[in-house]
Amino acid sequence: MTRNASLTDWGKIAADQLTYIANATEPGPGVTRLPFTPQHRQAIEIITGWMEAAGMDVHLDAAGTLVGHMAGPENSGIFYMGSHQDSVREGGAFDGIMGVLLPILAIQRLREEGISLPFAVECLAFADEEGIRFPTALMGPRALAGTFDPAVLEMQDQDGVTLREAMENFGLHPDDIQSLHRPRQEALGYLETHIEQGPILEEAEQALGVVTAICGIERHQITLTGETGHAGTLPMSSRRDALVGAAALVTEVNRLANETPELRGTVGALSLLPNVVNAVPREVRMTIELRAPDDRVRENAGQHIHQFATKIAKLHKLHLQIEGTYQQSAQKCDTALKECLTTAVKTTVGTALLLPSGATHDASAMADLCPISMLFVRCQDGVSHVSDEYASHEDMGKAVEAISAFLKSYAGANAR
Amino acid sequence: MTRNASLTDWGKIAADQLTYIANATEPGPGVTRLPFTPQHRQAIEIITGWMEAAGMDVHLDAAGTLVGHMAGPENSGIFYMGSHQDSVREGGAFDGIMGVLLPILAIQRLREEGISLPFAVECLAFADEEGIRFPTALMGPRALAGTFDPAVLEMQDQDGVTLREAMENFGLHPDDIQSLHRPRQEALGYLETHIEQGPILEEAEQALGVVTAICGIERHQITLTGETGHAGTLPMSSRRDALVGAAALVTEVNRLANETPELRGTVGALSLLPNVVNAVPREVRMTIELRAPDDRVRENAGQHIHQFATKIAKLHKLHLQIEGTYQQSAQKCDTALKECLTTAVKTTVGTALLLPSGATHDASAMADLCPISMLFVRCQDGVSHVSDEYASHEDMGKAVEAISAFLKSYAGANAR
Repeated sequence: MTRNASLTDWGKIAADQLTYIANATEPGPGVTRLPFTPQHRQAIEIITGWMEAAGMDVHLDAAGTLVGHMAGPENSGIFYMGSHQDSVREGGAFDGIMGVLLPILAIQRLREEGISLPFAVECLAFADEEGIRFPTALMGPRALAGTFDPAVLEMQDQDGVTLREAMENFGLHPDDIQSLHRPRQEALGYLETHIEQGPILEEAEQALGVVTAICGIERHQITLTGETGHAGTLPMSSRRDALVGAAALVTEVNRLANETPELRGTVGALSLLPNVVNAVPREVRMTIELRAPDDRVRENAGQHIHQFATKIAKLHKLHLQIEGTYQQSAQKCDTALKECLTTAVKTTVGTALLLPSGATHDASAMADLCPISMLFVRCQDGVSHVSDEYASHEDMGKAVEAISAFLKSYAGANAR
Repeated sequence: MTRNASLTDWGKIAADQLTYIANATEPGPGVTRLPFTPQHRQAIEIITGWMEAAGMDVHLDAAGTLVGHMAGPENSGIFYMGSHQDSVREGGAFDGIMGVLLPILAIQRLREEGISLPFAVECLAFADEEGIRFPTALMGPRALAGTFDPAVLEMQDQDGVTLREAMENFGLHPDDIQSLHRPRQEALGYLETHIEQGPILEEAEQALGVVTAICGIERHQITLTGETGHAGTLPMSSRRDALVGAAALVTEVNRLANETPELRGTVGALSLLPNVVNAVPREVRMTIELRAPDDRVRENAGQHIHQFATKIAKLHKLHLQIEGTYQQSAQKCDTALKECLTTAVKTTVGTALLLPSGATHDASAMADLCPISMLFVRCQDGVSHVSDEYASHEDMGKAVEAISAFLKSYAGANAR
């Protein structure tokens, strides 16, 4: 006998299950669940239970991704959904894992409603998105997309264990990762559900949001070098104060990002030498990070900041060194999937707020395989990666409803 | 047979003697000579030789000051000259010790010219002005001025040795320091000779300068507290970025000091949390130091910065904490001594450049005993407290000549 799926409180089930799997953690505050650890093993056992309850066939692939497969008609394509099982150290109980659970519940809900989809669905619990244990991440989606670089297998964690060793000790065969590459023609699309990690939905009093694009990122390491001197004896006019130049740069990054729609600009790290009360600062090292959903906006900002830094260095007689340390292009969400998701969210909560994702997600790597889309769920105070990260059971219930509606709508639009 | 004093190259003698006493140092680059150490003992032996060659009676007082006494007529007052024997760690061969040597050579020169002064002279080599070994300084001049606080005797160096123990191991009786207090009526004045530690004389192509005042100092510890967040997901409009507030403050301190004559303003130390590339800075701790030869100028600047910080904190929704951590009033140099020194410098090098001292000196404490004056000697590139600190023998020769001229002129003006 099946339950009446529409009367089941899927949000409460989600909250209960997230509380339960939060026990798969290292000791300490919040949740610490790193890939290829006993905690990861525990999580796999729990997620397997979720997938089996939804009627899926479950296996662990060579990249450590737990795959729940719900078969579709013969020769139909596969629609992917999922997120990551891992957390940061002392993180929360929602980031990643909520996006593993909610689509599984949506599939279970459709099943209990007696609805079968005209395509296969795979729910994915990726091993590692946060990149905390090893200095790499997104291995699971990269394996599926065929963009996995086996060189990362030789990277070491802080105990000197290589990724390869960690995976082998976990019972995996990393040399089989290359064979995980999925044919593009069968990959219909990918939907990732994730807490927003920001305050926009909360401020707009919206439970759900539809992501327009995953922001591109560029990071610069800046070193400004002047000359130190005694803060009492060196006249102002003779100074080459690296911090005065750095301050102008911090102010400009902030001004530019405030005045440019959808650009985010941050000086997150800054240190100076000699860093004593009565000495003029000789050297400042600082980072500048720019993010935007439109690569041209970000690149223009980067060029402007470069020119501004050059001007400021000249003005304050400083030596300037700028090194681009990281760059990642923006990933637009697929128009058709986005429209389908927008309709589903509107049906569920009345309006659909569209917003970019400032953070990177598994979807960034899945974009190399198939069209992507993302559903954001409101999180309390906009915080993530901390132990009091929180999404309400009501909002998670609405997300399950919206994912179900999305799948039905997508099935209708793409019926063969 | 005496040499012809005016033909003796006192500058070369000074350079040779400073090279020689630079051997009284801990191993390593530059000069490291801390108080109440074997290096201090070595220095005392060498300085004793200098003083005796100039005809002085020499003794070490209870505060560790080596005193060279040149008697004057009965019941005449005493004119003091000197500076400190100690250095910073890996410092130079001129800061302090040059101001011990040059007045001794000036006395020797007068003696060789057969000139006797109508007052006694004491040349002083203070033990500790830099405050490197113990978190206190200026013990020697404070003892003479009667402002010595015996509580500092319990302060410890980094090896846990108290100042009292260090002095006793050095053969001193610190409990006798209180008896060193000199009667004000016999203290005629104090002249300190010191390298400028700044670039003003070098830029003006002047060997010597006359100090107008020793700048007053105030230091503030500022903490700006906002809120951290993910640099990708937190919209610009929702941020409470502590570094953006701090940057505005750095810019304003620099602007104000540049636009206010004789004010120096420095943010020398700054640190932030969490200090990572992709997180909005939550907290900035920074220092602000203000110096001016006029206390009102400095105090007005301090009040302006306080108001500005309050405004900036409000604008960026930050919590502001300002703590005044240090304050020292300016010490004006005595008008009569300054005029006398100005005349002597003009006679020696043609013009007399007047400038404030941004740094504190033994003279700051001697000001509590008697009128003070200071003679600055040009130093190469304006640098001090480093191993390539340098004053030329030509400039030091001119300083010896100017000190001699000053003493003769002062004797003439104050003949009893």
